[in-house]
Amino acid sequence: MVLDWKTLHELIGLEPEQDVVSTYSGVESLTGAGADEISFLGNSRYESQLATTRAGVVLVPNDRYQAPEGTRLIVVENPSLAFGRVIEFFGAGADRVRPGISDHASVAEGVEIGPGVEIGPGVVLEEDCVIGEGSKISSGCLLGQGVRVGEGCLFYPGVIVREGCVIGDRVILQPGCVIGADGFGYEFVDGVHQKVAQVGTVEIGDDVEVGANVCIDRARFGKTVIGRGTKIDNLVQVAHNVEVGEHCLLVGQCGIAGSAKLGNYVTIAAQSGVAGHLEISDRVILAGQSGAAKNLREPGIYLGSPARPAKQERQNKATLARLPRLREEVTELKKKLEVLMAECEFPAESGES
Amino acid sequence: MVLDWKTLHELIGLEPEQDVVSTYSGVESLTGAGADEISFLGNSRYESQLATTRAGVVLVPNDRYQAPEGTRLIVVENPSLAFGRVIEFFGAGADRVRPGISDHASVAEGVEIGPGVEIGPGVVLEEDCVIGEGSKISSGCLLGQGVRVGEGCLFYPGVIVREGCVIGDRVILQPGCVIGADGFGYEFVDGVHQKVAQVGTVEIGDDVEVGANVCIDRARFGKTVIGRGTKIDNLVQVAHNVEVGEHCLLVGQCGIAGSAKLGNYVTIAAQSGVAGHLEISDRVILAGQSGAAKNLREPGIYLGSPARPAKQERQNKATLARLPRLREEVTELKKKLEVLMAECEFPAESGES
Amino acid sequence: MVLDWKTLHELIGLEPEQDVVSTYSGVESLTGAGADEISFLGNSRYESQLATTRAGVVLVPNDRYQAPEGTRLIVVENPSLAFGRVIEFFGAGADRVRPGISDHASVAEGVEIGPGVEIGPGVVLEEDCVIGEGSKISSGCLLGQGVRVGEGCLFYPGVIVREGCVIGDRVILQPGCVIGADGFGYEFVDGVHQKVAQVGTVEIGDDVEVGANVCIDRARFGKTVIGRGTKIDNLVQVAHNVEVGEHCLLVGQCGIAGSAKLGNYVTIAAQSGVAGHLEISDRVILAGQSGAAKNLREPGIYLGSPARPAKQERQNKATLARLPRLREEVTELKKKLEVLMAECEFPAESGES
Repeated sequence: MVLDWKTLHELIGLEPEQDVVSTYSGVESLTGAGADEISFLGNSRYESQLATTRAGVVLVPNDRYQAPEGTRLIVVENPSLAFGRVIEFFGAGADRVRPGISDHASVAEGVEIGPGVEIGPGVVLEEDCVIGEGSKISSGCLLGQGVRVGEGCLFYPGVIVREGCVIGDRVILQPGCVIGADGFGYEFVDGVHQKVAQVGTVEIGDDVEVGANVCIDRARFGKTVIGRGTKIDNLVQVAHNVEVGEHCLLVGQCGIAGSAKLGNYVTIAAQSGVAGHLEISDRVILAGQSGAAKNLREPGIYLGSPARPAKQERQNKATLARLPRLREEVTELKKKLEVLMAECEFPAESGES
Repeated sequence: MVLDWKTLHELIGLEPEQDVVSTYSGVESLTGAGADEISFLGNSRYESQLATTRAGVVLVPNDRYQAPEGTRLIVVENPSLAFGRVIEFFGAGADRVRPGISDHASVAEGVEIGPGVEIGPGVVLEEDCVIGEGSKISSGCLLGQGVRVGEGCLFYPGVIVREGCVIGDRVILQPGCVIGADGFGYEFVDGVHQKVAQVGTVEIGDDVEVGANVCIDRARFGKTVIGRGTKIDNLVQVAHNVEVGEHCLLVGQCGIAGSAKLGNYVTIAAQSGVAGHLEISDRVILAGQSGAAKNLREPGIYLGSPARPAKQERQNKATLARLPRLREEVTELKKKLEVLMAECEFPAESGES
Repeated sequence: MVLDWKTLHELIGLEPEQDVVSTYSGVESLTGAGADEISFLGNSRYESQLATTRAGVVLVPNDRYQAPEGTRLIVVENPSLAFGRVIEFFGAGADRVRPGISDHASVAEGVEIGPGVEIGPGVVLEEDCVIGEGSKISSGCLLGQGVRVGEGCLFYPGVIVREGCVIGDRVILQPGCVIGADGFGYEFVDGVHQKVAQVGTVEIGDDVEVGANVCIDRARFGKTVIGRGTKIDNLVQVAHNVEVGEHCLLVGQCGIAGSAKLGNYVTIAAQSGVAGHLEISDRVILAGQSGAAKNLREPGIYLGSPARPAKQERQNKATLARLPRLREEVTELKKKLEVLMAECEFPAESGES
């Protein structure tokens, strides 16, 4: 697949200012692109990369930029957006919806499928599922009874959504994520962990993205909630009855224990954990490999396990690194003190005599 | 689906003492229920929630309780058990077995399927699998050659069990869990990690539950064992040749390294790890985000990485928080000591003179 | 399935020196084997286990070894290799390739399938996939558009590879692993996390093994790379644009953040993390539950979060354990100093008087 100069301009909504015979074979970053590739300057902090790029063409936001030799610049109002259109052109098409229901899908009675929906091979839709307009349910996805999927969703292959869960509009689910498994709830009776029925569901807001092999458990009662615009990275655990606010980031391999409540714009960084029943306020950032063991009420960065305000924890850690020196100092002090005591003994006694 | 007063009583095995015309549309917790929902008081510590509930009806264990206005109470010997029956009535049915083999399933030669078994669409049963009476194998489950599943099991969608593994009775497997993948074993020869064949299996005892996207690896030889009644949360890793005892809890994202042995009633909390070949005795609790680096022989709570008895570790951590203050104290001591030494010098010298 | 004395010798390429009428039913370790099982001595450090084994027969590397009563020894040049053949005989066959395409598979247009390939039931191969000679794609695997798989690969059930990814020769993918999900990339614009298109791919080198439920994300541009011979354990996260060198070990539940670069022969132990954009040099070992927060340039073992050279970190941790004692010492010092100051005051004053 190649893109010529004229078609490139059509894609991004411009008239070519000159005729160029080059063709381009793909997209790349400024540092990685070669002469037959297209790149873009989306953020001024990458300006220095523009100076040394070998890209065939770079989309830039204004005419202040100089092209290195062999590189052409195209000025476009929003290079990031324009570049998105170029990417779509070259894209392998996994996010392109090809309406229709595969012969290899299994669709139960009572399922409602909106217009323009794609149902891939190996998909199982149990009774009474509803799939909204323009959504794509890729190969091998398994949707339980009564699952409701909004419009314009993109379920990648192998997604599992258990019965009764509700997914908003424009939600992206990466492969292998599991929505609505039973929460981990038992009562310890007569030496045995008796299962506590998990009869709630999961509700995922609009514009949420869920990473590969993520687990979001159904509530015991009511619902586990992922707020609008929140993005969840791979292998994250969200336990039963958790409520995650809007526009949060849950980074790879973090875990949110049962009934915890996260505000809006919260970031839980990689491999961190939030203990059960805690409240994490708006705009809290829990740093990587940390663990929230108490409510975190003030916005700001928290660090460590148990997590403390970052400044305090960094001070503790820095002191920790100086511990061996501190021990030496105390040992020296003891020696000096002993010498001194021995010495002082003398005049003290002489004073008494 | 609605439940009327009379049918509700039938479900829980009681005669209605009066005629009531209300109907109920679902179950909820005491705090979440509305006038058309049913709740229960299963534990006396929730008594205060009963006082303010808005539930239409609450199942209670005896006639000592007062109903708030608008709420009816039904006295039943075991509210939790009775409530379970109500839940089943309203349940979305994912755990209800509908005997039969889907046309969309692939069943190889030599497979034995017991009476009352459900095999969902997209299921693959390889040669010589045995599925015990009344078990449900939901959509998209993949069972390798010779897998043996006991009676009354519930495999949720997308479970994978590799060849030769043995699953007990009444085992629940949540979506996406993988039983019997190869253990992580290599020999480093001539600069290359050569694979060590993993020819053992996994044996899962009766009444075990395994969470979503959990991995339990097959043994190199012999078997990896999960004891009767043990419950495993999501995204847990159990490596090859691990032996987990009975009635243990392995909480979300924890990991048990190769050949470790856990006793009975052991709890490994969230995001914790147990190093390879260790022995963890009965009733040990390893706290969250901790790491067992030695055998833990005494029952009790362990904390930290490496894990120490909780009391000791908490003391260490508390001291750590006071470290900056400790440093200041040492600095003060040094200053005072210097002053003192300068002072003491004088009388000492005067004493000598 | 039983193996007699004569067939056993044929399998391992030897002539039997005598006639023996025994038959054997399986393989086991030296410590676990019974009279009807075959074992081997692959490493001299297990010599002591040979003395007490109850195995029916043991493969040994030379004639210096004594058999316990009831155990026969067979001398073979490479016992490990020979034992591998015996294992194959008894193996449940999950890694045996049975060429052919299942009727229950879904194969799109333009797919190229090499000779001797097995495609299992429930497999989905999207357009233009290429499967190399002798590879086995087990049940339920889902391969996106244009995925290229090399020769002699073994994909266990339920593997997902998204569009455009490239897999080398002799690669083993364990169940549930996800190759090529979108990287976790957003730009924060007008209070919303806007998705940054992830248009790169993943390239997995020859002889790589990937564990169950592992996630390896596709690059934003270009490719995420797993070098030749690298082995990845279960539930590991490899983010977008990561480059892992050759012959590395990524142990269970570890995570490598975006754009990090690992050299060759690097080990990232269980539950550890490497922060984004870092460089980890050849032969670095990051210990379990640690976190690399800076480039690690020197070969050797690193420990802690943030990770430091192991020796230094162990010293810090040891000092930490002695902290309560250190506090007591400082308190004692303060008291003594006060006593001393009170005492010294006297002669000092007397000296002045």
